[in-house]
Amino acid sequence: MRHYADSALLTDLYEIAMLQAYFSRAMNQTAVFEFFVRQLPAQRNYLVAAGLAQVLAFLAALRFEENELAWLGSTGRFDAAFLDSLHDLRFTGALDAMPEGTIFFAGEPLLRITAPLREAQLIESRLINLLHYQTLVASKAARVWTAARGKRLVDFGMRRAHGAEAALLSARASHIAGFDGSATTIAARLFELPVFGTMAHSFIQAHDSEAEAFATFAHAFPDNTTLLIDTYDTEAAAAEVVRLAQRLRAQEGIHIKAVRIDSGELGEQARRVRAILDAGGCGEIDIFASGNLDEHAVDALTSGGAPIDGFGVGTRMNTCSDAPYLDCAYKLVEYAGQPRRKRSAGKSTWPGRKQVFRRFDAHGMMEGDTVALEHEAAPGAALLEPVLRGGAPVQPAASLAQLRARVQAQLASLPAALRALEPAPPYAVTVSPSLHELARQTDLRHDALAAAARANWAT
Amino acid sequence: MRHYADSALLTDLYEIAMLQAYFSRAMNQTAVFEFFVRQLPAQRNYLVAAGLAQVLAFLAALRFEENELAWLGSTGRFDAAFLDSLHDLRFTGALDAMPEGTIFFAGEPLLRITAPLREAQLIESRLINLLHYQTLVASKAARVWTAARGKRLVDFGMRRAHGAEAALLSARASHIAGFDGSATTIAARLFELPVFGTMAHSFIQAHDSEAEAFATFAHAFPDNTTLLIDTYDTEAAAAEVVRLAQRLRAQEGIHIKAVRIDSGELGEQARRVRAILDAGGCGEIDIFASGNLDEHAVDALTSGGAPIDGFGVGTRMNTCSDAPYLDCAYKLVEYAGQPRRKRSAGKSTWPGRKQVFRRFDAHGMMEGDTVALEHEAAPGAALLEPVLRGGAPVQPAASLAQLRARVQAQLASLPAALRALEPAPPYAVTVSPSLHELARQTDLRHDALAAAARANWAT
Repeated sequence: MRHYADSALLTDLYEIAMLQAYFSRAMNQTAVFEFFVRQLPAQRNYLVAAGLAQVLAFLAALRFEENELAWLGSTGRFDAAFLDSLHDLRFTGALDAMPEGTIFFAGEPLLRITAPLREAQLIESRLINLLHYQTLVASKAARVWTAARGKRLVDFGMRRAHGAEAALLSARASHIAGFDGSATTIAARLFELPVFGTMAHSFIQAHDSEAEAFATFAHAFPDNTTLLIDTYDTEAAAAEVVRLAQRLRAQEGIHIKAVRIDSGELGEQARRVRAILDAGGCGEIDIFASGNLDEHAVDALTSGGAPIDGFGVGTRMNTCSDAPYLDCAYKLVEYAGQPRRKRSAGKSTWPGRKQVFRRFDAHGMMEGDTVALEHEAAPGAALLEPVLRGGAPVQPAASLAQLRARVQAQLASLPAALRALEPAPPYAVTVSPSLHELARQTDLRHDALAAAARANWAT
Repeated sequence: MRHYADSALLTDLYEIAMLQAYFSRAMNQTAVFEFFVRQLPAQRNYLVAAGLAQVLAFLAALRFEENELAWLGSTGRFDAAFLDSLHDLRFTGALDAMPEGTIFFAGEPLLRITAPLREAQLIESRLINLLHYQTLVASKAARVWTAARGKRLVDFGMRRAHGAEAALLSARASHIAGFDGSATTIAARLFELPVFGTMAHSFIQAHDSEAEAFATFAHAFPDNTTLLIDTYDTEAAAAEVVRLAQRLRAQEGIHIKAVRIDSGELGEQARRVRAILDAGGCGEIDIFASGNLDEHAVDALTSGGAPIDGFGVGTRMNTCSDAPYLDCAYKLVEYAGQPRRKRSAGKSTWPGRKQVFRRFDAHGMMEGDTVALEHEAAPGAALLEPVLRGGAPVQPAASLAQLRARVQAQLASLPAALRALEPAPPYAVTVSPSLHELARQTDLRHDALAAAARANWAT
């Protein structure tokens, strides 16, 4: 049995139930679904699209294994002919999407699937699961990056991320959004991103004195020594570092690279430690800070001029603690050539295949977006690009470096008020008149069909 | 290469860096670490321990594969002799823990590892990652269960859970805490818990009319038909269900089981739908509600007498949105026979191997806990039990049914104010005088050793 994260059973049961019902009616014409965020969290002025690479990997590998079909059969819910039909299920459709790293806003489709109904439906749960989390983290990490004002940023959040995949993918998403790297080893291996790591308090505690612990570590990693100095008394430890640094430099040519502070009022602690290091001739030793950091804490430290050279940001970014989910959805907008939409209270959607057009001013700054029909001639650059056709990639995948560059360019073109941490008036996203008209026609058609169906019952 | 979630590289790099430094000094005596939560979130009166089963599976499988060691070597950070020593690394130690499903509070160790230093250290990141998330979800889900007052509860949260593992493990943790089951198919397969699933709005939209969609689904699942009725107009759909139910009952002997409402003001909608169903002779059709639910929303609906028979609770539970992380830690409390502790500002810890003793009143209600030394004769029942010795299980694993029963029994013995959703005065947790004394002696010893070390430098 393969790993559960790769199983076709990693889906809501209702997807398979719907497929059974579609099978019983031989309903499998072309369906078009779009993924979008209904509303931004109050704490966000923009979002950063991420997770598409993992969606593509999921679609490429999609298939039911024999043992999975046998298990489905054992539940007694599904008929044999239907389960048999799942043997051949592969993703053969088209995918259009905003490239990863694109800034987007509420109501804008960032991904569109055009595929036979059963394929487009089955993938819903995992597709949302993958796009939602990385977009959540990239959007938060971009704010932390803005607040860091060029200081080094490292993802420290594996331990309190919500499980293994969150640990792995938050390393990737935060790196795309500007983080230098991660402390999570497996992320470095799988995504070839820089990995960082020093020591825990337990390392200090396991030795009889900090002096001994520091010396042990410096000898084990003479080229890359960062010492954690807040286990007992931070200033005393900083003085210890000075003594050790002087001795190691003179006797062995070893240079201590940095110290880390993980508790207390970090700005004040960093000032005192900086003074002790400088007074001891250790001006070249960096100060790295961690502990309960988010974009607001980092902003307060960097704007206040705290002498901190880098930040480890973990839990609050990886759990996206101020806004731990997005109000996102993957909705049917067309089936069998007919536009479709949902009209539930507070959750109505726009029908039809759509495109997002972005306008820029003369300085290259983002000016406003229009959500329009796919082939409408709206002004601006089209954001959704062809990614898959017939289940196969249209172009080679972008590298992480390219994605990082895209986020940087996008942030540079984002108006300053939106880039700021404080809530700003919303960016202008309008819906084209043609789309309004399509919604009206879709409702008229639906109401006529529903009335006809009722009349049918009555007879 | 095995799946990343099973890799020994799913750890913070600093764990491996510390192991290299320990190896260089041949430091590998017995270490004792304890896992605890420093502080409860403001929104919680108690927590429910969960995730131990996954920790045990992780420890049982812990080993470095050849390709993982080769990759570590390729980073240029580690020496060959050290990497070679990792070949044999297995978890050979002892584990004591509160059984899953135990209610616990801030400052109480819920798990203790006693093992050679390198083993006890290496496992830190993943052990926290596994215990933290399930404890987070079980603690939230227990509140939802309390609010549901016996109504059916189903985990609906795969799509917005933070990745695959969060989706899987939140199904397990919420089931332990009282949920009837999950919509996540793979969770049903792996944990043998009940799985539920009906249809999405897209199913309704893909048909030309609701009437047709409802009939298709009822014929596909004649024994288990739940119809989603809020895609267009909820009351009109309820009337449609009545017409269909009457016809199916009369002509084919099919009984529609339930309807689901997923938007709008759920209580009011449920009342109107109930009235329509009852007036149409469909009193046996249940109403199931979903959409942005958490314990407060469920409580308002059940206490207000809304005619809802069950709830689908997703995003806010699986992301634990009101408190998406716990301030938890895994800290060294003893090494080489000597108690150890950390004295960082706001993050100091208690030294030594500890036990938690719980006192009950004459009615079996929880009265207060004492955190004491392991072998102290404190009054009450000891909560930490032996789980592993020499890396092997001491007793067979509990079934999910047993864990569910434990949570129910624990909730029944929890004072009503703590069981309530509103913040209550904290439960009494005291620290024994012997533990205070051990902390004092540990500090004295440490300060003497540090002074000696400084004197050493001076010479």
